Amino acid sequence: MDGRGLRVARAALTRLMEPSDLPGLALIRVLGPEDAVAFIAGGDATNATVERQVTQLLSEAGTQRWTGLSEALGRWRPRLVDVAPERDLATVARLGGGLLVPEDGSWPRALDDLELGAPIALWCRGSAARIPEQSRCIAVVGSRDNTAYGANVSVEIAGSLVQRGYTVISGGAYGIDAHAHRGALSAAMAMPGTLGGTSQETVVEDGSGPPTVAVMAGGVDRLYPSGNDDLLRTIAERGLIVAEVPPGTNPTRYRFLQRNRLIAALCGVTVVVEARWRSGALNTAHHAEALSRPVGAVPGSVYSANSAGCHRLLREGSAVCVTDASDIAELAGAMGENLAPEPLAQTALYDGLGTSDLLLLDALPLRTATSVEKLCIVAGLSAATVLAGLGRLEALGLAEGVAGGWKRRNR
Amino acid sequence: MDGRGLRVARAALTRLMEPSDLPGLALIRVLGPEDAVAFIAGGDATNATVERQVTQLLSEAGTQRWTGLSEALGRWRPRLVDVAPERDLATVARLGGGLLVPEDGSWPRALDDLELGAPIALWCRGSAARIPEQSRCIAVVGSRDNTAYGANVSVEIAGSLVQRGYTVISGGAYGIDAHAHRGALSAAMAMPGTLGGTSQETVVEDGSGPPTVAVMAGGVDRLYPSGNDDLLRTIAERGLIVAEVPPGTNPTRYRFLQRNRLIAALCGVTVVVEARWRSGALNTAHHAEALSRPVGAVPGSVYSANSAGCHRLLREGSAVCVTDASDIAELAGAMGENLAPEPLAQTALYDGLGTSDLLLLDALPLRTATSVEKLCIVAGLSAATVLAGLGRLEALGLAEGVAGGWKRRNR
Repeated sequence: MDGRGLRVARAALTRLMEPSDLPGLALIRVLGPEDAVAFIAGGDATNATVERQVTQLLSEAGTQRWTGLSEALGRWRPRLVDVAPERDLATVARLGGGLLVPEDGSWPRALDDLELGAPIALWCRGSAARIPEQSRCIAVVGSRDNTAYGANVSVEIAGSLVQRGYTVISGGAYGIDAHAHRGALSAAMAMPGTLGGTSQETVVEDGSGPPTVAVMAGGVDRLYPSGNDDLLRTIAERGLIVAEVPPGTNPTRYRFLQRNRLIAALCGVTVVVEARWRSGALNTAHHAEALSRPVGAVPGSVYSANSAGCHRLLREGSAVCVTDASDIAELAGAMGENLAPEPLAQTALYDGLGTSDLLLLDALPLRTATSVEKLCIVAGLSAATVLAGLGRLEALGLAEGVAGGWKRRNR
Repeated sequence: MDGRGLRVARAALTRLMEPSDLPGLALIRVLGPEDAVAFIAGGDATNATVERQVTQLLSEAGTQRWTGLSEALGRWRPRLVDVAPERDLATVARLGGGLLVPEDGSWPRALDDLELGAPIALWCRGSAARIPEQSRCIAVVGSRDNTAYGANVSVEIAGSLVQRGYTVISGGAYGIDAHAHRGALSAAMAMPGTLGGTSQETVVEDGSGPPTVAVMAGGVDRLYPSGNDDLLRTIAERGLIVAEVPPGTNPTRYRFLQRNRLIAALCGVTVVVEARWRSGALNTAHHAEALSRPVGAVPGSVYSANSAGCHRLLREGSAVCVTDASDIAELAGAMGENLAPEPLAQTALYDGLGTSDLLLLDALPLRTATSVEKLCIVAGLSAATVLAGLGRLEALGLAEGVAGGWKRRNR
């Protein structure tokens, strides 16, 4: 079993099985990619050992709708006539791409969180060496019919994220997706250390990852939608286009929904910029939520139907309100890292206070006293800083120690 | 101790003590209003029993900075010269108002949640018989320098709340407050059962409470700010103006902040429509939060500094995202009551379909019919699944069998 054979086998399997075909993915785990192909091609459908092991894996994954190997083979075998992995690999190689498999060192480990539902492989096309680790990837997604507001926010947020060294991942669709990709590409071209200019030049790899990655619902050879042809071509040149389905595959509704799980799984944070009450972008957000990854939603006018889905996420508690890249970086960082700076604003009441004292003051409850430990958590400050700050605030008459801890003192 | 004496005593105490003067409020609890006045006027400052009881109450309330009766008397006694409760009562009576005291049946019991910090009394001016119970009162507050967006949202939300039978409570200030009051008044005048028309007519009391109440930081005889003079006069005619400070009192920063606690305490929900990063409206929201009352924040453009405070509340988890009166009514209701209806949205064609039927639907051609064999390959499903799925899709009017096979049915 050499590396090449394994890659060819996974290439074949991406054609035999639809995304998230859990019985198929279980079969691959049980037999390995190469034997799985051989089994589908001519194996004994009544093999009790394989049946038992697949059933076991599916049961562990909580799958209930498992009707047995025989029926699954009935689903895969009609597609054997279309299997041509060497041809597919050659097609993608001609486009400057290849097949990334879980056995590769550069396989995005973030996909492991999908467990049995992780993709068989990723067809890639582009200049980037790898997809950065999830903490450096942010999904910026939204509806196809964006407003001018949504376009501006997408471009600015994506650009600002790239300036901070993040990779912006989206779905390559019209609307918010396209604006997010464009904002990421523009910011990358404007950055020192990269070669701006014509689209023929390649981005200098400085270890900070590609500016943007498009995850497609169809094959990476098909630049869909056609109106985004130029954009997707530029993404391939300066970033990466990936898909779990093989070249030539049409995007379908089912594949769009499955694609959304990949976007969510690759990213530390998923941000929805604009979405209607029912929108595919909410599907991506729910995938992120299911993976326990933070979701951000950009607020907008209550009169904009294009923000109704974002407000829904906020209202239901599925998403955190984010207004700029700094808010998003805070979500992406470990607790306490990347804290968004407080906007500069008039501070009449609290003139002369340092940042930590301001944070502490904001954290102090008005009525019911709280403990130093709680203040550390709420203000995001060390115990020493909190204790020193409480001393200063008390001296200024802004805080008071009472039975049970500390609270704000009304002036 | 008759009712009149008690009312006169509380009237006097509102002049002797600033809002939330906890030692003073404790003294009133210990001695009762009339004896408290007498004690301040000429009582023995070294009375150990009174001192002990006040100290006990303050300790129960968590107050530590209690330096003794003697110092507190030093704070109250200089004001004795200004005490003229009968004159104050007469002043407010001339304006068509009076003094509401906790001993009255119509005292808003919601204020009890302020515990020791509950006001001594409420000076009222207006036509309304009483402030409705907190579940029927919604605070709509925000910054003084509103945008056109904030004005529209305030007017619409307040109007819609009044149409639903709620009383809109705000601070009578410029900006969001004024627009909320105006929206409430307009909606009330347009409603059947009320007499629209000139401001001389009074609103018919139908048990649903006044459309709006303004809680002032200064005396109810002072229509502050002067630019809102007409508005506040109309509120007095059709609703209610209240204050815990006696007539003639100037609004100060401290009194504004204390006034905010009354707005929060009177209302089941506090809604912030527009607020800057630092804004007095956030103070009202924090009071509501401290009282464990729900807070709603209206989202807006991320480019609007006037929405930054709302987004801050959302981001910090202090507020729930609300976009209309229906969202707010849901917050105001007990759990499960007043649930906002899901916006009407087109039900997608594929709602409720299982995975295999979705795959099959995606695979069905729109124009030229295809064979079951071909569908198996395209959809990645077994023949049995395809046949069963075609039956279901046909029954739903989504597929049709024609000469040459199957195709999608246009609805």
